[in-house]
Amino acid sequence: MKLPLGFRSAGIAAGIKQSGKPDLGLITSDEPLVWAMVATENLVKAPCVTRNRARHAADHPVRALVVNAGNANCANGETGMWNNEDFAAMSAGALGLARVQEVLTASTGVIGKPLPMDALRAGLPKAVAALHEEHADDFAGAILTTDLVTKQVEATLPGGARVVGIAKGSGMIHPNMATMLAFVLTDAIVEQRPLRRSWRDVVSRTLNQVTVDGDTSPNDMAFVFASGRIPADTGELRYALGTVAEGLARKVAADGEGATTLITVSVTNGRSPEEARRAARSVAGSSLVKAAVHGRDPNWGRVLSAIGMSGVIADLDNVTVRLQGFDVFRGTSSPFDEPAVAAAMHAPEVLIEVDLAAGEDDATAWGCDLSADYVRINAEYRT
Amino acid sequence: MKLPLGFRSAGIAAGIKQSGKPDLGLITSDEPLVWAMVATENLVKAPCVTRNRARHAADHPVRALVVNAGNANCANGETGMWNNEDFAAMSAGALGLARVQEVLTASTGVIGKPLPMDALRAGLPKAVAALHEEHADDFAGAILTTDLVTKQVEATLPGGARVVGIAKGSGMIHPNMATMLAFVLTDAIVEQRPLRRSWRDVVSRTLNQVTVDGDTSPNDMAFVFASGRIPADTGELRYALGTVAEGLARKVAADGEGATTLITVSVTNGRSPEEARRAARSVAGSSLVKAAVHGRDPNWGRVLSAIGMSGVIADLDNVTVRLQGFDVFRGTSSPFDEPAVAAAMHAPEVLIEVDLAAGEDDATAWGCDLSADYVRINAEYRT
Repeated sequence: MKLPLGFRSAGIAAGIKQSGKPDLGLITSDEPLVWAMVATENLVKAPCVTRNRARHAADHPVRALVVNAGNANCANGETGMWNNEDFAAMSAGALGLARVQEVLTASTGVIGKPLPMDALRAGLPKAVAALHEEHADDFAGAILTTDLVTKQVEATLPGGARVVGIAKGSGMIHPNMATMLAFVLTDAIVEQRPLRRSWRDVVSRTLNQVTVDGDTSPNDMAFVFASGRIPADTGELRYALGTVAEGLARKVAADGEGATTLITVSVTNGRSPEEARRAARSVAGSSLVKAAVHGRDPNWGRVLSAIGMSGVIADLDNVTVRLQGFDVFRGTSSPFDEPAVAAAMHAPEVLIEVDLAAGEDDATAWGCDLSADYVRINAEYRT
Repeated sequence: MKLPLGFRSAGIAAGIKQSGKPDLGLITSDEPLVWAMVATENLVKAPCVTRNRARHAADHPVRALVVNAGNANCANGETGMWNNEDFAAMSAGALGLARVQEVLTASTGVIGKPLPMDALRAGLPKAVAALHEEHADDFAGAILTTDLVTKQVEATLPGGARVVGIAKGSGMIHPNMATMLAFVLTDAIVEQRPLRRSWRDVVSRTLNQVTVDGDTSPNDMAFVFASGRIPADTGELRYALGTVAEGLARKVAADGEGATTLITVSVTNGRSPEEARRAARSVAGSSLVKAAVHGRDPNWGRVLSAIGMSGVIADLDNVTVRLQGFDVFRGTSSPFDEPAVAAAMHAPEVLIEVDLAAGEDDATAWGCDLSADYVRINAEYRT
């Protein structure tokens, strides 16, 4: 899909991944970009996260973002910190930017191996030479780790401004920014403050509601960049950002490691937005629910148990659970056609609806089934 | 192993499990028992948990505990509540006890199916007829669900009093009493209040430090019963209870669904006992750590990431990680002999040691590796 106005992107193979696949991505703008970021809540943070947070707090505009895949540059002590600074500086140099503060960095991949600085040094000029404004396909491919597919979503605002999002997953994904990188670009005109407010709100409802395995990562971040070319209503922009971020959330969950099925959990009538979100995440993140979906087993008891684990409700008398549109629990075991529900669960997406009947707030969470392949992938990833 | 003085036990097949295996267990005492219980923190609670908690709060002595396996009698609405009352009443009747309050109940198995009252009614007199004071083997077998082996541990106090523990796992096990039932019997003389204090402390250090899959269950409970026959020092008793509960915790983790390897996580020098416990649980519970152990991959990055997720420490500079006794991280990536460590991980038990260097408090947690069999078991459990 075409990039919004004002952006260029590239993705090349710099030799970081042993496979020789693309592993160095670049997004740039000739003009300063308004931006916002939400980062991992894991207390162990990679240097790229720490550095970007400082830039975020300083409220400076930026002009470039560079990403490497295959090496997370995390837990590398002081060397890791300086390597990350050098990664930014080399990128600024290759781009001809006078100020290294205008470059943000992101790294994803294996933890605890030194960043291959020679490969990056050699690769950056090639990435700069490859920059173009046509699409983000190369970039979307260069940020992947164990992902099977690239992830891009777009939306267009009534006034013509566009929003394009690119993300990667796909393991270690859990609410509050687990190994997920998301980059959303827009050519809408927007100021820093409303953009940041919108982004926080959007991420809490979308990308932070994705869970693959309950593990958060020290590296992950969700960004929005605005090049400020086309007038846009703030509400319309927030809506479009929400659409794009939700689309990315679904794609990340569907491409979870070993996943065969996207699980969407819709919780309605919670006492607060946060309680509804927590309940939805708890169901989507339960290993037992995930395994039941994998086995096409309409095991609503595990859904209820996950709701109970989330701590939002103790009284089941008014709770309703629906699987693929079938009522399976209405305050007590509700007779249902098990073979029919199991058959309906043989689908690429399984919808679990829970009506808490406790308030008026709704939320959604996305996850994936737990398969033997998840184990295989994660038992063999590194060695 | 021989029961402590004053107890009798039985375990028979009442026809609750489709397999025809034993599924009804009974522990009794002719004299009133001093007792303590720690129960699930899942807000959704089975009626047996709610009823036992009321008995616990009322501080009454008890004389019998009845357990059925194969049906959790959970999420069955008001019918479930009355069926549990009837289960207790029928047990009291079969035992010839005048007061139904002297009987505690426990149920474990599938959620949301009505308790088969006819089978229980027919089975209870048989269970009473089978009571004996020799050992708990029949009882230990009758409480199992997907467990592969029975779990019993014993200890003897200096004065001759004995402690015998029996437990079942094996999925849905996570800190704070997930699908775990543990029954510890002692003939020590002890009062209710010190016994309850000891038990809370012991469970928080042992059974609540076991995690198999992150899911807590609505049904699970850990009991201690004292028949009061042999004088014992309170400190000695607490120590023996700790030994037995830790032994049960290890057995439950080792028999986790699909497990091939027991994972023991030892965290030292945390800022508080609670932080050390949380860090240890976070490592033992991480799907990525569990999969890495399954693959014999010395992936210490995932250990650090799990420590970060637990929120106890942000600065890794003084943190040390050891795998099977090998230093693999000392504030930064520490060169180590990867093939040697991987080879050492080919063992029935893998020890992960984390020195937080932040304070003086230690803790241990127990878990198991994540295998493709876990998925198979949980995708196919019910249907």
